[in-house]
Amino acid sequence: MSQKRLITLTTDFGLKDPFAGLMKGVIFGVNPDAHVIDLTHNIQRHNIFEATQTILMSYKYFPSSSIHVVVVDPGVGGGRRPLLVAAGDHYFIGPDNGVFTSIYETCQSSFFRVYHITASHYFLPMSGSTFHGRDIFAPVSAWLSNGVEANKFGDEIDDFTRISIAKPVIAENTLRGEIVSFDIFGNAISNISSETLQILTPEKSRNNLKITFNSKLLPLVNYYAENEDDNMAAIINSFGHIELFSYKNDACTKFDIKIGDSVIISLE
Amino acid sequence: MSQKRLITLTTDFGLKDPFAGLMKGVIFGVNPDAHVIDLTHNIQRHNIFEATQTILMSYKYFPSSSIHVVVVDPGVGGGRRPLLVAAGDHYFIGPDNGVFTSIYETCQSSFFRVYHITASHYFLPMSGSTFHGRDIFAPVSAWLSNGVEANKFGDEIDDFTRISIAKPVIAENTLRGEIVSFDIFGNAISNISSETLQILTPEKSRNNLKITFNSKLLPLVNYYAENEDDNMAAIINSFGHIELFSYKNDACTKFDIKIGDSVIISLE
Amino acid sequence: MSQKRLITLTTDFGLKDPFAGLMKGVIFGVNPDAHVIDLTHNIQRHNIFEATQTILMSYKYFPSSSIHVVVVDPGVGGGRRPLLVAAGDHYFIGPDNGVFTSIYETCQSSFFRVYHITASHYFLPMSGSTFHGRDIFAPVSAWLSNGVEANKFGDEIDDFTRISIAKPVIAENTLRGEIVSFDIFGNAISNISSETLQILTPEKSRNNLKITFNSKLLPLVNYYAENEDDNMAAIINSFGHIELFSYKNDACTKFDIKIGDSVIISLE
Repeated sequence: MSQKRLITLTTDFGLKDPFAGLMKGVIFGVNPDAHVIDLTHNIQRHNIFEATQTILMSYKYFPSSSIHVVVVDPGVGGGRRPLLVAAGDHYFIGPDNGVFTSIYETCQSSFFRVYHITASHYFLPMSGSTFHGRDIFAPVSAWLSNGVEANKFGDEIDDFTRISIAKPVIAENTLRGEIVSFDIFGNAISNISSETLQILTPEKSRNNLKITFNSKLLPLVNYYAENEDDNMAAIINSFGHIELFSYKNDACTKFDIKIGDSVIISLE
Repeated sequence: MSQKRLITLTTDFGLKDPFAGLMKGVIFGVNPDAHVIDLTHNIQRHNIFEATQTILMSYKYFPSSSIHVVVVDPGVGGGRRPLLVAAGDHYFIGPDNGVFTSIYETCQSSFFRVYHITASHYFLPMSGSTFHGRDIFAPVSAWLSNGVEANKFGDEIDDFTRISIAKPVIAENTLRGEIVSFDIFGNAISNISSETLQILTPEKSRNNLKITFNSKLLPLVNYYAENEDDNMAAIINSFGHIELFSYKNDACTKFDIKIGDSVIISLE
Repeated sequence: MSQKRLITLTTDFGLKDPFAGLMKGVIFGVNPDAHVIDLTHNIQRHNIFEATQTILMSYKYFPSSSIHVVVVDPGVGGGRRPLLVAAGDHYFIGPDNGVFTSIYETCQSSFFRVYHITASHYFLPMSGSTFHGRDIFAPVSAWLSNGVEANKFGDEIDDFTRISIAKPVIAENTLRGEIVSFDIFGNAISNISSETLQILTPEKSRNNLKITFNSKLLPLVNYYAENEDDNMAAIINSFGHIELFSYKNDACTKFDIKIGDSVIISLE
């Protein structure tokens, strides 16, 4: 009954404690043919927004039927429900604290179903209250990977939790977005996607875009090395988002960019 | 002859050098069907106590016949012996420096056997003296996973090394334990387990327990969010240990908790 | 058509962003039987020298036909070419920025071939310009692991990029090398290898070697614990290189050793 299926892990567990390894041990005890991939265990502690961004930018790069377990879960053991979300041809497992908001927002409602996981015979026996990653989410993901159908884990619900995610605003040919994250290189990623740019202007060429940050006009380049001086420049990154960078520098530190800083795009 | 078997790795190698990856390369050269899981590579450098705690809290969550390689090994290449421990239905491989003390202490002596690994034909050819993780422990774990019997690696011994591990003390209905580790969230984990509490009082309810830390009485809760203010509280965590925490805070930093600090439990 | 093959990853992506996980997702989408091993994702940002050292010390420990993907790639998306190097019975995939210099230097030229990867039908569709690890190197490694022949990915070239790597200098029975890296334990690794020592003296015994660092003579020991005081000592490490250490100490910090510091070896 075991199947070759991909399970990804996204947590705020860090890499010092053996917590992620324990989840894998439990998964392989249920499905020895599962294949587990770490997305990251370094989500900032309890940062649900960071987790929901990470899973949204990532899940599409995995084969269909992949199972994505997200454990950023300050409310573990209390009233918050464990969820299984079937969205398109991917599955998501984690706490009902808004961590899947980005999935709900990008899928059309007819394309996803949310189940409240209650079928405790799939849990680790004698589960405690502080580590549902090991005791509930890991074994449920493994049983799902073994072919147990989603609706076997609990009833469908529609009152799941969403967090508020800032969206770019368009007014008078001007688009105002904001910086939402930094990558390891200090690049500053905005919430302005190619799709949003499409709304501002349907032209495929981006030559008519004026990108402003902190009252300064930034060049929009096609690849990092095109802007070889160490000023700030903008690029549409490989996730389709407007990103601010400084070639071979940590732009975040160098220019003191902060989460929430405005990025303004207008048409020439 | 290759078999699908789990091998876990616990080391103080960190994640900058390619050392853990090299162990995996060697393992897959011997058994392409082995499945290797990282428990942690961030044991504090040379901290044998931390390693023995980590492996004890972890091994039970892996399928039977799993092989647990622990390389915290300041004496590498010198006189200390390489060991293979068969305990219950798990195997442990690492240096004879006390790193398996916790396994010896929790298994009844009839249930474990300790072998001094000497069968150098299972080692990497031309081994050096600074990296037995790659040259001895990895290939031995891989050959064991291939089905080579434990006693083929060397003679059984009974003079293996133990380190001293502080145990809680019970006197006059009072139990005195201590803080032995912190997790990534800053929670402070004590050496007081459910089994020890059982000795203090056979009652299943924990309502009669009085937990004191630094002369302050702490509430004992069932899940983290039950104590939503940011004071310190206690919980029996999912490893069955008394743990001190502060909801959504790093209790270790906030209350300056130290390894070795006393936790006192008495009956009301 | 999928095959059980090893693919290793060496990058400067760190472990906070999900970048390494995304490469694995893409690989498994192409070859569900590939086995991916992380060598390290903590190469210093943009440090091509560190990457070329890491891959040289590592690749030999993997089975033949392994594929080594190295993504330290500040020039991503610009003019630098993506490369596939077939060297001996290993394969290397990464940018043409010198990251494979160590491989070129240690293989005899007849034993390696370098291909400029241009066959874009093997790339991820709609690749961007900032993440060729995911869009080009990962899928190419996966197709190669599936059995696509190296020359199917592009034309062979011979004008590939090399970086300059300092080599030890021998003059008048004296060998002058330098410190090139530190490991997690603070050990200082030099560029003086056993092969170079062989040139200085063909004697197998090392008793006649005088090792000097900062005008101080260092004892040469056979294993770390042989020098139990906390002075500095030298050892030939398990990668065959002269390494300076201080038992159970971080020699780098304790003695303020720097990359580029001279290590001098002469005959008694």
